[in-house]
Amino acid sequence: MADIGIGIVGGGYMGKAHAVAMAAVASVFDTPLRPRLEMIATASEASAERYRQAYGFRRATADWRSLVADPRVDAIVIATPQKLHREIAEAAFVRGLPVLCEKPMGASIEDAEAMVAASEGHVNMVGYNYVRTPATQFARALLARGEIGDVTWFRAEHTEDFYADPEAPASWRTDGMANGCIGDLAPHIVNAALALVGPIERVMAEVETVHDTRPGGRVTNDDHCQMMCRFASGAMGHIYASRVATGRKMGYAYEISGTKGAIRFDQEDQNALWLYRMAGPAATRGFTKILTGPDHPDYRQFCQGPGHGTGYQDQIIIEAKDFLKAIHSGEPVWPTFRDGLEVLRVTEAALRSADSGHWQSISSDQKVGSP
Amino acid sequence: MADIGIGIVGGGYMGKAHAVAMAAVASVFDTPLRPRLEMIATASEASAERYRQAYGFRRATADWRSLVADPRVDAIVIATPQKLHREIAEAAFVRGLPVLCEKPMGASIEDAEAMVAASEGHVNMVGYNYVRTPATQFARALLARGEIGDVTWFRAEHTEDFYADPEAPASWRTDGMANGCIGDLAPHIVNAALALVGPIERVMAEVETVHDTRPGGRVTNDDHCQMMCRFASGAMGHIYASRVATGRKMGYAYEISGTKGAIRFDQEDQNALWLYRMAGPAATRGFTKILTGPDHPDYRQFCQGPGHGTGYQDQIIIEAKDFLKAIHSGEPVWPTFRDGLEVLRVTEAALRSADSGHWQSISSDQKVGSP
Amino acid sequence: MADIGIGIVGGGYMGKAHAVAMAAVASVFDTPLRPRLEMIATASEASAERYRQAYGFRRATADWRSLVADPRVDAIVIATPQKLHREIAEAAFVRGLPVLCEKPMGASIEDAEAMVAASEGHVNMVGYNYVRTPATQFARALLARGEIGDVTWFRAEHTEDFYADPEAPASWRTDGMANGCIGDLAPHIVNAALALVGPIERVMAEVETVHDTRPGGRVTNDDHCQMMCRFASGAMGHIYASRVATGRKMGYAYEISGTKGAIRFDQEDQNALWLYRMAGPAATRGFTKILTGPDHPDYRQFCQGPGHGTGYQDQIIIEAKDFLKAIHSGEPVWPTFRDGLEVLRVTEAALRSADSGHWQSISSDQKVGSP
Amino acid sequence: MADIGIGIVGGGYMGKAHAVAMAAVASVFDTPLRPRLEMIATASEASAERYRQAYGFRRATADWRSLVADPRVDAIVIATPQKLHREIAEAAFVRGLPVLCEKPMGASIEDAEAMVAASEGHVNMVGYNYVRTPATQFARALLARGEIGDVTWFRAEHTEDFYADPEAPASWRTDGMANGCIGDLAPHIVNAALALVGPIERVMAEVETVHDTRPGGRVTNDDHCQMMCRFASGAMGHIYASRVATGRKMGYAYEISGTKGAIRFDQEDQNALWLYRMAGPAATRGFTKILTGPDHPDYRQFCQGPGHGTGYQDQIIIEAKDFLKAIHSGEPVWPTFRDGLEVLRVTEAALRSADSGHWQSISSDQKVGSP
Repeated sequence: MADIGIGIVGGGYMGKAHAVAMAAVASVFDTPLRPRLEMIATASEASAERYRQAYGFRRATADWRSLVADPRVDAIVIATPQKLHREIAEAAFVRGLPVLCEKPMGASIEDAEAMVAASEGHVNMVGYNYVRTPATQFARALLARGEIGDVTWFRAEHTEDFYADPEAPASWRTDGMANGCIGDLAPHIVNAALALVGPIERVMAEVETVHDTRPGGRVTNDDHCQMMCRFASGAMGHIYASRVATGRKMGYAYEISGTKGAIRFDQEDQNALWLYRMAGPAATRGFTKILTGPDHPDYRQFCQGPGHGTGYQDQIIIEAKDFLKAIHSGEPVWPTFRDGLEVLRVTEAALRSADSGHWQSISSDQKVGSP
Repeated sequence: MADIGIGIVGGGYMGKAHAVAMAAVASVFDTPLRPRLEMIATASEASAERYRQAYGFRRATADWRSLVADPRVDAIVIATPQKLHREIAEAAFVRGLPVLCEKPMGASIEDAEAMVAASEGHVNMVGYNYVRTPATQFARALLARGEIGDVTWFRAEHTEDFYADPEAPASWRTDGMANGCIGDLAPHIVNAALALVGPIERVMAEVETVHDTRPGGRVTNDDHCQMMCRFASGAMGHIYASRVATGRKMGYAYEISGTKGAIRFDQEDQNALWLYRMAGPAATRGFTKILTGPDHPDYRQFCQGPGHGTGYQDQIIIEAKDFLKAIHSGEPVWPTFRDGLEVLRVTEAALRSADSGHWQSISSDQKVGSP
Repeated sequence: MADIGIGIVGGGYMGKAHAVAMAAVASVFDTPLRPRLEMIATASEASAERYRQAYGFRRATADWRSLVADPRVDAIVIATPQKLHREIAEAAFVRGLPVLCEKPMGASIEDAEAMVAASEGHVNMVGYNYVRTPATQFARALLARGEIGDVTWFRAEHTEDFYADPEAPASWRTDGMANGCIGDLAPHIVNAALALVGPIERVMAEVETVHDTRPGGRVTNDDHCQMMCRFASGAMGHIYASRVATGRKMGYAYEISGTKGAIRFDQEDQNALWLYRMAGPAATRGFTKILTGPDHPDYRQFCQGPGHGTGYQDQIIIEAKDFLKAIHSGEPVWPTFRDGLEVLRVTEAALRSADSGHWQSISSDQKVGSP
Repeated sequence: MADIGIGIVGGGYMGKAHAVAMAAVASVFDTPLRPRLEMIATASEASAERYRQAYGFRRATADWRSLVADPRVDAIVIATPQKLHREIAEAAFVRGLPVLCEKPMGASIEDAEAMVAASEGHVNMVGYNYVRTPATQFARALLARGEIGDVTWFRAEHTEDFYADPEAPASWRTDGMANGCIGDLAPHIVNAALALVGPIERVMAEVETVHDTRPGGRVTNDDHCQMMCRFASGAMGHIYASRVATGRKMGYAYEISGTKGAIRFDQEDQNALWLYRMAGPAATRGFTKILTGPDHPDYRQFCQGPGHGTGYQDQIIIEAKDFLKAIHSGEPVWPTFRDGLEVLRVTEAALRSADSGHWQSISSDQKVGSP
């Protein structure tokens, strides 16, 4: 197994998650490449060195450009604030490096479009980790093979409550659309919608700031948003995202009705998928609570026992595995930058709709790949 | 305790539910009046006589006018198809009889408006039974006393799956808007929205027939509908109703986020209410599953033990109790015909919105009473 | 439909439940007989008259003997404290009256044996209502037709928490073994064990008073008890009953493992039965949450819609229906007094076991009837 | 941060789990030592080399003695079949190496006693991973600080169904008591009992082989076992373990009643802990579903978001962190070999009880440490 030098830009929440994933992935999966934690770049020498030690990188830098230029860095993970995504990705592609960029891709749709253009011919991937749980991968497989028939209704949400308290103070999170709910949370669940049901044709949305001011300042982005949506398949849908959904901690959840069955999922119990099939005697029909296990995608490598469960960090490990596989094969890996752009086209249409009060079409060459 | 002669028009599903309720209510509750099952009217002599025997009425008739005119009938319950509601109610009010009319009130908004006009000065009530479960009554009380603070988000659905199978044959249920989803199911959950969060100011809706034809004929009403809604309080909301929600049997469900807490409820587990309160240490916060019991409204009379549970029929018994109380006191009882009209104004606006593709205001003097 | 005059002895909790059931049952079910609430007997003239009015009986008495002797009383329900069961039942059988006696039958096994002897040739039934929910009836049917194969393990409990608080004062409930947990709660779940899995051959038990004294006095009966049990079928089992199970309100619950599947039930969500079947691909196996509906026993008469739910009172109505049917047909109705005696033989063996610290056999001609 | 050379003996299920944990732990936690995957030993050169590559060890061997003797191995993890535990541990302690040994410790109580003796003065730990979930650690903390008062009842189970199918073939798992249910599964949940409620004084048990023969041969160990138990605190309890619990995948579950509250947990939903507190108005009491998050033990390092969840592998990482901490500090780490021996004293007493049909005391100097 060949080594591959990994450079990670960003040392916070997601930087750590990717560092741990890169440290563990080759022991968990039979990867063709074994990551070497080569270099980490953050905003200052001090923090970079601190993260280097904490995560086990060989070297640290306060200059992401030197990380991108380093000959021992063979692939990079971008885990910085969104406004830096584009510049770093473009530089990396110039050098021909494979890039795994955290979601949402860039700080604007222009950024995302530029990043797609720059990524042509290079391995690229966006970090929508939640679609990689064994349960959601299995849901995709069930849908793909028609287990619930044609989808007639899709409802989904990404709900958390870290800003439910009106007294929670203003911070970087309450500043700028990219950090708001439509910018930061909604993309996750829009990506799920695309992954599960396919392209969205049009949306009708509301985007709202519930608490305009908070201790410490004004709030310049939204607290929650909803959109009615129509899929290319004809299915009707609704998506809601919120950071003020009191009591919800990781409400990445969906309910899908089909002509032969239905699927329900809630990330707060991420190791269970609920499946209803309109078959057999009515007296024994009901939603079956399927616990994930070695018969589901990407589970067996974590544990041979069903119901033993995977967690948040494991999603990032699965992501790392797929990124390494893409690097080795040179094949694109879903979701690519192009797929990530499609997500932003939906949220951008939602913003337009909220402004205009009208339905908005998604102007895109939307295509969602396969896992 | 004085006797009161009850006449019920309609012998089917709801006719039976009201008959049983009237037979039981005075033994369950300490009602000021004791119902006497005086007369039942249905479409034919044969069926009327059959229902008379089955439910224990004294007399039967195939002519609802003779029931309304009968001197021993002191109050009536209308449980017929919707198109007859208006005529019967008007005749009853002419005689000054108290009327409990099944939802939705009449076959059109014009019917409902006429019924409201006719009801002036008389005891009148609409049969929205689901808001009378102990759990939902308690939810209303929690909201009213500010237990979850100001409502920021309301999501609700009334989902069943009796037409989820595309091969389910056409019937009276697939014919005419009054029997469709927006006509028949949506009013229940719109009524819940009004009861829980207050008046709705505007809606943006989709109303859709998923399966245009079924074995036996064309479908002339909708299978499911959704609406984004804005409450007078400022709260944002979403309501969905469906008869094709595969796997859902009685999905009368709501989730309400507030600035201090949240409430969740699903009629499929009608004896539980989930309450979250943003208080105390974070480590012990979570949704509390409250089992209904004698400390909740209208429960103790059914059973002194908490968690022992009430069921569908008990809701109708509670409704009968409130109707009898209104008759005895002469006080109006929520939801009145006027409240029922407000529900229809919302669904009518939803239809307008679905047609036009635009937000529609509710043109009303909407006022929701207290339980 | 012929009338039948019902006399109820006892006006409290269960007296009311039976009164309501008798008022409603003929409207709910297609019973061959229509109950007439003829007479109620309680401890004093004043209370008897109060209950007469509240429940709608024609007459009241403070002397149960005159109720039993009354020519217009055609069948009786015994809902008194346990110590009176035997005397009343014997008197009723002398007159040849059908008797529905509340559980557990009598205050001792001697009482129960005498009641069985007296009941020979007469219609008799014991009021174990919980086995009559549609869900548990369906569980019995699933087991009977081998849906989960041979039972290998049975675990059940009847847990409530009305004495969980050590400061809850002493009362009649804390006095005398018949009112303790092994006397009052355990019989319900032992009856379920017999109904679901069949006769029990031997038990090994613990019976314990957790709080020996309470405000107001000493406690002379047990707070909780457990027994390991071995069924005649060879299945291993465990039963627990408690009135100090903090947080449990109606924890009448069972889990049954078989060679082909499994069943789980909890009365706190009485309208759901969980069924697992070891069939089909492993990836889609799981417990199916079946909501009760018109395809399950004795549900359709309450409501044609699945998932709409029945409640506590409905169980008593089902019981009344079966009692009336037995009266009309002259056929015995499960559980008969003989079945009720079998329950007590198990709890009596449990007491012997707890005293001796050894396994105890059930000395019986134990036979459990069919639903 | 100093490096530490890790040697793992055993390359299967648990060998892999420990290898991954050692690869990841220093990036997840702020450990004082950074593991270096130095050497792996398995039964053959071929498998050892295969595992070496798969997990990323530097060297491999088919001779565990050379691993133990290797100067670059500073600590070892024993993940072999149980019969080898003792010999390896003794050899490691002779060299003074810290040892983390998989549960249950040794193949017999004699093995365990010898291992305890050999461990004196050395860092030692037994791999009971499930007590290290954030939820169960939090449950321990709640109990320790008296949140639910005095424990009155403890019920627990470790139930899986990998042998529920009578046609599942015989294998090494069906051979020898150490691989049976009382030998392999019961120790996990007995350890939980000791950790949560403290020492057990006596047990009364049944240990049973449900299917004596299977395709391929006779079964020489048990399929399930139950024990009534009495804790030193006076609390009554029941423990069940099964590999034939159809439908249960990871049923490591407990329910604890106390005088002030109650706790419920099921590993199949390992990120939720249910807490009931007998406080506040009765109308709002109920079990609160607490989702684990950064306010619970050992969670924050995996993810800053509550409800995002940890999984099976994360428990092993937490274990590795505690082992490294013990090595660095020289302090013992719960559960030590001595704690592991206490577990086996309980299961050994259960076997004696099942043989004799009598209660059996735990003859021990049972002491359970703190987390």
